[in-house]
Amino acid sequence: MLDSKSFRAMSCGVYVIAAQDEDTKAGCIVNTLTQVTSKPARVIVAINKDNFTTGVVLSSGRFEASVLAESAPMELIGRFGFRSSADTDKFSDTEIRIDEAGVPYVAEHVVSHMGVRVLSSEDVGSHMLIVGEVEEADVLSTEEPMTYAYYHQVKGGKTPPKASSYEAPDIADDANGSDASQPSDAGVGSGSTPRYGWQCQVCGYIVEIDELPDDFVCPICGVGKENFVRVEL
Amino acid sequence: MLDSKSFRAMSCGVYVIAAQDEDTKAGCIVNTLTQVTSKPARVIVAINKDNFTTGVVLSSGRFEASVLAESAPMELIGRFGFRSSADTDKFSDTEIRIDEAGVPYVAEHVVSHMGVRVLSSEDVGSHMLIVGEVEEADVLSTEEPMTYAYYHQVKGGKTPPKASSYEAPDIADDANGSDASQPSDAGVGSGSTPRYGWQCQVCGYIVEIDELPDDFVCPICGVGKENFVRVEL
Repeated sequence: MLDSKSFRAMSCGVYVIAAQDEDTKAGCIVNTLTQVTSKPARVIVAINKDNFTTGVVLSSGRFEASVLAESAPMELIGRFGFRSSADTDKFSDTEIRIDEAGVPYVAEHVVSHMGVRVLSSEDVGSHMLIVGEVEEADVLSTEEPMTYAYYHQVKGGKTPPKASSYEAPDIADDANGSDASQPSDAGVGSGSTPRYGWQCQVCGYIVEIDELPDDFVCPICGVGKENFVRVEL
Repeated sequence: MLDSKSFRAMSCGVYVIAAQDEDTKAGCIVNTLTQVTSKPARVIVAINKDNFTTGVVLSSGRFEASVLAESAPMELIGRFGFRSSADTDKFSDTEIRIDEAGVPYVAEHVVSHMGVRVLSSEDVGSHMLIVGEVEEADVLSTEEPMTYAYYHQVKGGKTPPKASSYEAPDIADDANGSDASQPSDAGVGSGSTPRYGWQCQVCGYIVEIDELPDDFVCPICGVGKENFVRVEL
């Protein structure tokens, strides 16, 4: 018997992994960063092989890990967690610092950061398991670190399909019948150019619509209407 | 700069790893269990190479991981976390079940368990990093999983020297001057055989003494007087 709910009891944090190779910057969200030895200080992280960031980490041989605080806004998590660095500049709207090795890291809404040199990598299926040595680390604030449980329970966050802990929704969970890839047009305004839209606080997606129907589901990250806020376009 | 306080912000749970090879049972506490892929379900765990359990996991090619609940008593954590399976039967005073592959697992004060087949292992210094495939998993209760932060902040737990996250105490942290390896004899009774002693709730150590001095420190696991309860000898 393999009850996948068993895995949800594993506790973990929420981290931004960042890397740079020549002019290419990349970053993504992970919940798999773990300390494996204390002397020397070594960590592992599992990142999906399809993530753009994974290639930049492996080609540059370094990465930065920022430990997100509970205050981290869903917009930051959505941008780093639900978009691709291949076509999004994830670093433009956030306070970024550069570590001693020249690698950028997210420095706001962050408890601490670590600059890591890659020692080895192992293909474990969908993910690469990367072992690295921490060469630089600083505490940045006294905030509480965000746990993955807090992200789900308090922030209402979702798990993107490329995450280690992703599970396809059960049919029962999807009973409201919305097809996330084809948002309904119901409720679209009268044909005049709308002055307002709604922005998803998980992934940043903006829909140009006057009022969101109750069963609206974000076509990018799958969250419901309660995660959208009205924005002026 | 390498501020080791940076690592304390990484969130993790508390797990009992158990393994059996022929008649030899072994188990220990870890905080390093992490999911690395969801399809197939694979996990990693880092265990100190000096742990007796590590050898049994590697020789048998299997392990069980029990996710401890917040209700887990410090005595259970102390027994699995601060003693060696080489000279202690850790499985005698706890509800144990046997999984489909014949491996025992702790089944009380536990949220879920996973039966894991070892796929590979890598030497990362003081620890072995073991990758495995989850072949069996069940939810055992609806309790809250214990986080490592809860263990430290609510339970008053300590980190044993062989853990991935161990840090030698700072001189400033050790300002009460007690040498954990040489407990003070101050306060020992009048020479008559004591009828009572004090048991450490973290590691199970019993000291035969009438009254504990205020600055008493457990010689096994380093916790203070407040973690001892009076027991009849």
